[in-house]
Order: sequence, then structure tokens, then C-alpha cells
Amino acid sequence: MDTPKGYRYAAIEGNLKYSGRLDLALIVSDTPCVAAGTFTTNKFQAAPVLVAKELVETSANIQAIMINAGSANACTGEEGLANCKRSLELVASRVGLSSDAILPASTGVIGMQFDMAKWETAAPVLADAVGKHTGDDFAKAIMTTDTFPKTASRIVTVNGSDVTIAGMAKGAGMICPNMATMLGTVITDAQIDAAMWKRIVKNAVDGSFNCVSVDGDTSTNDCVLALANGASGTQITEAVEAEFQQAVTAIMRELAYQLVQDGEGATKVMQIMVSGAKTNAEADLVARTVGHSPLVKTAIYGKDANWGRIVAAVGRSGAEFEAGDVQLSMCGIELFKNGQPTDADFDTLLKPYLEKRDILIDIILGNGEGKAELFASDLTHEYISINADYRS
Amino acid sequence: MDTPKGYRYAAIEGNLKYSGRLDLALIVSDTPCVAAGTFTTNKFQAAPVLVAKELVETSANIQAIMINAGSANACTGEEGLANCKRSLELVASRVGLSSDAILPASTGVIGMQFDMAKWETAAPVLADAVGKHTGDDFAKAIMTTDTFPKTASRIVTVNGSDVTIAGMAKGAGMICPNMATMLGTVITDAQIDAAMWKRIVKNAVDGSFNCVSVDGDTSTNDCVLALANGASGTQITEAVEAEFQQAVTAIMRELAYQLVQDGEGATKVMQIMVSGAKTNAEADLVARTVGHSPLVKTAIYGKDANWGRIVAAVGRSGAEFEAGDVQLSMCGIELFKNGQPTDADFDTLLKPYLEKRDILIDIILGNGEGKAELFASDLTHEYISINADYRS
Repeated sequence: MDTPKGYRYAAIEGNLKYSGRLDLALIVSDTPCVAAGTFTTNKFQAAPVLVAKELVETSANIQAIMINAGSANACTGEEGLANCKRSLELVASRVGLSSDAILPASTGVIGMQFDMAKWETAAPVLADAVGKHTGDDFAKAIMTTDTFPKTASRIVTVNGSDVTIAGMAKGAGMICPNMATMLGTVITDAQIDAAMWKRIVKNAVDGSFNCVSVDGDTSTNDCVLALANGASGTQITEAVEAEFQQAVTAIMRELAYQLVQDGEGATKVMQIMVSGAKTNAEADLVARTVGHSPLVKTAIYGKDANWGRIVAAVGRSGAEFEAGDVQLSMCGIELFKNGQPTDADFDTLLKPYLEKRDILIDIILGNGEGKAELFASDLTHEYISINADYRS
Repeated sequence: MDTPKGYRYAAIEGNLKYSGRLDLALIVSDTPCVAAGTFTTNKFQAAPVLVAKELVETSANIQAIMINAGSANACTGEEGLANCKRSLELVASRVGLSSDAILPASTGVIGMQFDMAKWETAAPVLADAVGKHTGDDFAKAIMTTDTFPKTASRIVTVNGSDVTIAGMAKGAGMICPNMATMLGTVITDAQIDAAMWKRIVKNAVDGSFNCVSVDGDTSTNDCVLALANGASGTQITEAVEAEFQQAVTAIMRELAYQLVQDGEGATKVMQIMVSGAKTNAEADLVARTVGHSPLVKTAIYGKDANWGRIVAAVGRSGAEFEAGDVQLSMCGIELFKNGQPTDADFDTLLKPYLEKRDILIDIILGNGEGKAELFASDLTHEYISINADYRS
């Protein structure tokens, strides 16, 4: 991973819930940052979401992100909110920051209060570790049911100078956007105006994390937190905004793809492209109905060219179109057109494609210019085992 | 099963797709009936849905229902429509009926054309079998991945005379209403006005089949077909409509419960009660979001009191409420209130209840008078096996 200048990392075994594994991580910038964030639309927003959201809006001192895994601190009421703030104070004072300098995020079981005695013990250990670890360690420490850490980075040359952007995310289950994914962090050493950074982060999230789905379950904790500390000394001007936007979006898309690839129990990544919808929102509705359909997901897992399940999902999505206008292709092979199957010997033709990890599903509704794209995982025996056999 | 007067049944091995099992069934009334039907809201309505819908509206001669299993005749275009009509003609002429006398329904794989040569062979066998079988045989012949036939019946005493109502349904997968279930048939020997029968059937479907979900996948073929032949000689007057309605609804609820109980791979039946929503529609939205959540369904399968997943599903449903007003109970035990967990030692308290088949989930939103109820199955290893390993 390319490393933006001016950031130090800590990733420790905090023993907050798990033991014998990394579960508490911190990124500290050497100087105050321009911060941006996008947050879950779930009505039950976790304590750290409420706190981070407010800090992004009001604090001028932000220069760190702290993430714990194991306990989501969601649905925990006033006590949860107080615990979140207290955890920030415990760490902030020890790393020489004010408590409005750290953005918190949490992932894990919902409805469980933090054990603050454990935080008291962990905080000094975390503070002492700052600078001893890497961004890759950070990505490892924020994992829950993830099977691999998720990172992506880019170096962008802006007016002859290098600017580095790095992203770290965690995902696996309870993933379906509507605002961000489980947890994503993006840091850069670019010098950038706050409004521009917020705009870029929002656009990038819309084109990346908001286009992935593992199980359709938008979490109480989803968020993307983004810091820009200016340590490269290179200013992102409006002239290069588009280029910079592209790089940030590319990083987030890379992370988002990794989330689906590492979806709980996933063996496949469906790329569902919908076009010809009345509106983009209707295209999105169709993509999500297909991407969330247990019958579609299990067929893809079973390498079964059972495209009728896709058409049935399109039909119940609620989007407006004429049934006879809809076209469906899978992996480039046209299967359904004019309200009936094409002549393609689809079982034979699709067989080699269905062995692969990436499955392209192309749906044209013939009712307008609306478009959407969704990356979705399949639904497997392993998903059931992960979610039925253990409390994640 | 109690048997309404004046109906004969046929249930044969038509060898239309399966072999060595019943797959073609017919009910014939001795006299023309008053017919009613409710049909899938999926935009891709199967050929038999289009045909039955039109017949229910226009035909005065309806006195039979024919159902085949194996091929859904959905997404099959003009050819599928012609095949459906031809199948009706093949059978109608041989049982002495006009071709607008039989309501068709089909279940099975989508996007496959009927093999009409097989229908030519099967039709006379089916016609010859009329009167040789029972309603239970009929219920067996319409099964696909069902593990048991679904029937329910009642005898209602109306003004001193007996009226019999019987229902037969199939379900298992691709079940989620919005209009009926996979396939349901209700027959009665009551004498009843067409408008009243339609009203009663619609109300009963709304309070039964439209309240169940296995996987959220509303099929292209869902329908409930209902016949009343008057053979009991007993008229359903407005004075007894409510009582008769109650009996019809009770039968459909019994069938609907059996559908969820026999949901593909299901081990549990969640009864999700939502109240205090702004509107009934919002309550329904909450119930469905919870009932369709893979994380909730796998937790229930795993007998895990992981109620945070339920609260998270409520939060992302899109319904309007204040997070602090929501209350959640499971199996009568209050778990979440005032935005935080109750003091209940829920793991211990819920343990014995989670071993049982029926799991009551009670959600109060505190934002109005809207109510809804949903019966939903869990999500299991067996569901994945059924849907990934074989083309249903």
C-alpha cells in the first residue's frame, strides 16, 4: 500500500471483546486535517456514527480516526453515547489531542454496551503503539468476519507533485449500502479545501460503496471517514479536481469490490448493470431487487443458468416498464427478449462463464435513460454457517 | 379434508417434465361456478395467469381448475400463451366443457416452453381420471419442492344448513406475496353472489397469503383461484357474509401457515407483528424488511437471540418513527426500549423459546395506529441446497 505522508498508525489487541486478535486501531495525522464522512441511513445510528457525524460538521481539530471491532455500540442509548465519548477522551489525552480530534467508528455486535474497564486498560496501550504499525495493520485490526484485510491506494501526480491516497475498509456481512459500507477510511496527504474534499468523498461513495450488496442489510454503523492532512504540500485546485476525484473513486471502488468478494461465504461477484429505466432510482431498484433475491443468489452460487429467476426479480421490483421491452443478457449472452427466451442454448453457452468468479448480468428495460450498477455476492452454505452458528 | 359437494378430481402422472410423480391435476364442478381469483403483481405474469385473469373477468362458464407442476409457462411470450390455451382445449373437449370453462395455473421452471406433444398424451389420461381421485390427491399433484401437501377445510352451518369450504395450496420457494402465494385453490358448495365471492376471496387473501414470506421472491405465477358451485343449495346472504368470510380467511390462513412451515429448508415460523406505525403500509414495510433480512433469518435458524439484527432491519426499513420510541419483544420478552436494551438476561430467557418452531417477534414503533402481520420462514443450509443444487 502506498502511504500518504504525515500519518502514523496503531493496531493492537485491545481485548475489548475478542482476545488474541487485533481489535483496536488508530490513525493519527501529524497535523489537523480536512475531514469528510458519509454515514448510514439506518434510523438506529450507532453512538460512534452520531459522534463522528457531529465532529465532521463542527470540529476544526480533526486529525485521527479510531476504530474498534467486536462491539458496534449501536442501540445502546445515552450510556452508549457517553461510553463512545469517554473512549475518545481516554485515547485523545494520551496522544496529545483534544477529544474533538478523533473520529470514532465501531463494528461488531449490536445492543451490547462497551466494557469501559477494558477501554481503560486498552487506551494507554493504543496510544503507546502509535507509529509502530502500518496502514495494513490498521486494515487487519478492523476486520470482523472478513477473511482478508482490504486496502487500496494510488499516487496521483498533480502539477508535477505526487499526492498519495490510501483506503482501508472492512466488510463481510450486514452490507448493503445506503450510505457507505460497513467501515471505510480514506486518507490523503493532499492539501484540499474542505468543501471540495466533502464533495469528492460523497461522489466517490455514491459510485462505489453505495453500489455493493452482500445481504441487503444496511448496518447501524456503516460509515466512510476521510482525512486530508496536506502533508504533501500539493494543493488540489479546481483544475485537477476531476482527476483527483477519479483517483479517490477508483480506490473506493477497489475496496468496494473487495467487500463483495469477501462477502460472508461469497464465491461470486455479480455485476448487475441496469439501463433503460425510467429514472436512475428505478434502475437502482431493479438492480437491488435482483442483487438481493435469494433465488438469484443461490442460482449463481449453484452455477445454474436459471435466468428465469432474474426476470422474475425484475418483474417484482416495482419499476415501470413493458414486459415485452425487457432484455436480459448474462456474461454477454442474450437470453430473454420480446417477452420470451432467445434461441440461445444458454445452458451450454453459459457453462464456462458460470465457473468464473465475476458474473455480468445486463438488464435493459427499454423505458428511458435511467442507469444503475450493483456489485452483489452470491448466497452460500457458508453464509448460513457464518450467520447462524455464531453471533457476529 | 371435508369435501364440498359437486366436485370431482383428477391427479395424474402427466410426465410433462417430471416422471414418476403426480404433476397434473384437475378439479371439475358438476355445474358452472361463481369464480374469483387473485393474481401476482409481478410484471412478468405467466401465460396461465394472463389467461385465468381474463377468464375470471369474462367467462360465465367456469367450472374447473387445472394445474400443472414442472413448468411455469412464464416469460414464454405468444407461444406460451398459445400453448396454455391449447392445453385447456385438449382437456376441456374431453371432459365435455367449453374451453372457457377451465382456469389454468402452472408452477415450475420459468422460461421453458410447454412440450405440447406431452400434453397431447396427458390430456386424455387426465380427462379419464376425473372422479377417480380426491382433493388430497389434487394437493399432492401440484407440489414442486413442497415436502407435504397443503390442505385445509371447514364446514360452516349457515341458517341451519351445512356449507363446506376446502382449500389446497402449494408453496415452498419463490414465495412472497404481493397478491396471493404460489398457488392456492379454494372451492365451496355455497351458493353465493359473484361480487360477494370476489370480495370474500380478496379479503381472505389479504389476511393470509399476502402475509407470508419465505424468500421475498414474488413469483410470476402466484395466484389463488376460487370456485363456488352452489351444490349445497345454501345461499350466503349478507347477514351471514361475515361468518362465511371468517371461515374462508381461516382456511387460507391455515394454508398460508403451512406454506411458511414448508418453506424451502425452513425450520422456523416467525410471526412478525408490527404496530404503532404511521400507516398500515409502513407497518407492512417494517414487517417485510425484518422477515426478509438474511441476517435475521439466519439468527433465528441458529437459535441465536441476536435481536440487534431485528432492530437494525427496522431501522433500515424506510418507515418513519423516532428511534427512541421503538420497542421490541421476542416470544413475549421485552428486549429493546427507549433506544437501548432492557435489563433482561435475554440469552437465558429466550433459550427455551428459540428451540420451538414458532417465534413471535413484536415490534412497536410508537408513531401511529398502523399495523401489519407477517409469517416468515428462516434461512437455512437446506434452502441453499435446494436452490443452488437443482433447478426448481
